[in-house]
Amino acid sequence: MTNSSSERLGEFELIAKLFAPLATSAGAFGLTDDIALLTPRAGHDIVLKADAIVEGVHFRSSDPADRVAKKALRVNLSDLAAKGAEPIGYLLTLNLPNSTGMTWLEDFARGLGEDQKAYVISLFGGDTTSTPGPLTIAIGAIGAIPSGTMIRRSGAKPGDLVFVSGTIGDAAGGLAVLKGNHGGLPLREKEALVRRYQLPEPRLALGQALRGIASASLDVSDGLVADLGHIADVSHVRVAIEALRIPRSDALKAVGDSPKDIVSAATAGDDYEIAFTAPAAKRDRVLEAAARTSTPVTEIGRVTAGTGITLLGAAGEEIPVARAGYQHF
Amino acid sequence: MTNSSSERLGEFELIAKLFAPLATSAGAFGLTDDIALLTPRAGHDIVLKADAIVEGVHFRSSDPADRVAKKALRVNLSDLAAKGAEPIGYLLTLNLPNSTGMTWLEDFARGLGEDQKAYVISLFGGDTTSTPGPLTIAIGAIGAIPSGTMIRRSGAKPGDLVFVSGTIGDAAGGLAVLKGNHGGLPLREKEALVRRYQLPEPRLALGQALRGIASASLDVSDGLVADLGHIADVSHVRVAIEALRIPRSDALKAVGDSPKDIVSAATAGDDYEIAFTAPAAKRDRVLEAAARTSTPVTEIGRVTAGTGITLLGAAGEEIPVARAGYQHF
Repeated sequence: MTNSSSERLGEFELIAKLFAPLATSAGAFGLTDDIALLTPRAGHDIVLKADAIVEGVHFRSSDPADRVAKKALRVNLSDLAAKGAEPIGYLLTLNLPNSTGMTWLEDFARGLGEDQKAYVISLFGGDTTSTPGPLTIAIGAIGAIPSGTMIRRSGAKPGDLVFVSGTIGDAAGGLAVLKGNHGGLPLREKEALVRRYQLPEPRLALGQALRGIASASLDVSDGLVADLGHIADVSHVRVAIEALRIPRSDALKAVGDSPKDIVSAATAGDDYEIAFTAPAAKRDRVLEAAARTSTPVTEIGRVTAGTGITLLGAAGEEIPVARAGYQHF
Repeated sequence: MTNSSSERLGEFELIAKLFAPLATSAGAFGLTDDIALLTPRAGHDIVLKADAIVEGVHFRSSDPADRVAKKALRVNLSDLAAKGAEPIGYLLTLNLPNSTGMTWLEDFARGLGEDQKAYVISLFGGDTTSTPGPLTIAIGAIGAIPSGTMIRRSGAKPGDLVFVSGTIGDAAGGLAVLKGNHGGLPLREKEALVRRYQLPEPRLALGQALRGIASASLDVSDGLVADLGHIADVSHVRVAIEALRIPRSDALKAVGDSPKDIVSAATAGDDYEIAFTAPAAKRDRVLEAAARTSTPVTEIGRVTAGTGITLLGAAGEEIPVARAGYQHF
């Protein structure tokens, strides 16, 4: 732990009061040592994932601190979920501006604690430093997966079907609500969309159930089309999805239900659903895994020989997708 | 990986060009997948450590980018070293202001690559995001240690001796030089001190050699006195160090050699040496480990019953140490 924060924010008190109780694993030593120890599970590999969120970029200053904490954690757990892994714990790096108050930090730690219980994970160490910039939260997530069962991005084959969990586009809808848009939407729908933006639900049970079934998988963070484009790229196949089959929530449909709205949802990102492919012969096993884990799963397209990602309209025509910022179009 | 950076900095090109070649472990999949896989070594535990450095707080804007990269990495490796662990790899989170140029990033990646070769480690994944604030680098280091051999902070016992590797205070001297102080010092000494500030040398070989010998250990980051205070606290003992035995470099002695200068060196921090305790009966084994790993080690004090950390003068008198910012005094 660094000097800077102890000078500015009472780092040691912070750690003792707020974060030490989160170091629930014996190997985290209550954060009283320099490193954490993790005894690997027999027959399992360790999986690792890092992701950072920045105030004003990935979350809003007005977002509740407990939800910021949970989102920071869950965007990482979502990656583990898509690969079929089980979370074990995480490293936390907090860069705090001087303006960060104790109440914010208490709420933040409470949010982490609630999610630790929900996902049965432990804090394994971290670092708190001051920064003249925006509040920044970096998480390094650690998980385990039975050796040889990780679902890669690269396994999609021509003939495979394409699936996605949950509904797509809600988080972007929630962000729009927070920005003052969609004023005509009922409060209940507004809250549902905002919740999807602030509190993604990593599909851990589904991901684990898809081991040995899915041929390729990832979590939807850049946008459904962009992310399936990643699978197409590294699997060296063409992925075609049917726009009308993309699952959208009633709340999002209430915002708009035109073809343009569908494209918008499919390119918006921040969904943290699992998009995956599976051999057509395993369709029943996919649906069984979805049912067993109580996770909605929708078939949305097909993998063929070729390259790239294609969005198809009702008549099978190609819908042009051009959205600044996504490198794959 | 996040949208923000792809919109602002060409994240995917960055990764492909600069960081993918650093993902040398097979389990890092060349950064083409969402997570990295690590197959644990038999009979070993995994160790984890997170540390972040912020431009303007932990490094200077004028520090060369390759040295910034190496320092970000090495401050974490230093923690692993002090515990007796061996590094395997790391996760990297970069928060980049828009002003960060490609040359800086190239130098940064080159620095990482050089240190990866030096320490035989791999990048295991990361995240690059934009930030309106200062450049921030968070590292999550991953290592391995034979099960049951980690050197804790909490094992110091009355009667133990206190040791430290290398020399103390150089990094603070180097920072002072960079701030324009110590103008009268010869260039050679100036450069030696600056190098110690910008390029800490994690004592990995020594740390591993001290397994089974040292009773407690940590790396000196907050300052020698403050850090030995941490050992005193969690070991429930008193640590007394003799000021005149604290090893200082010729370059630092050229800056000043008064008792005040010694206290200054012992409270300055950023040394990344190993401070450790060992039973008096193991003194020879400590010296043998030091010789075998070609690491200078100096005996500087004793552990007794009691609490807290004490700095003793030539006549055995207690030297008051009062320095703002360290919570343990």
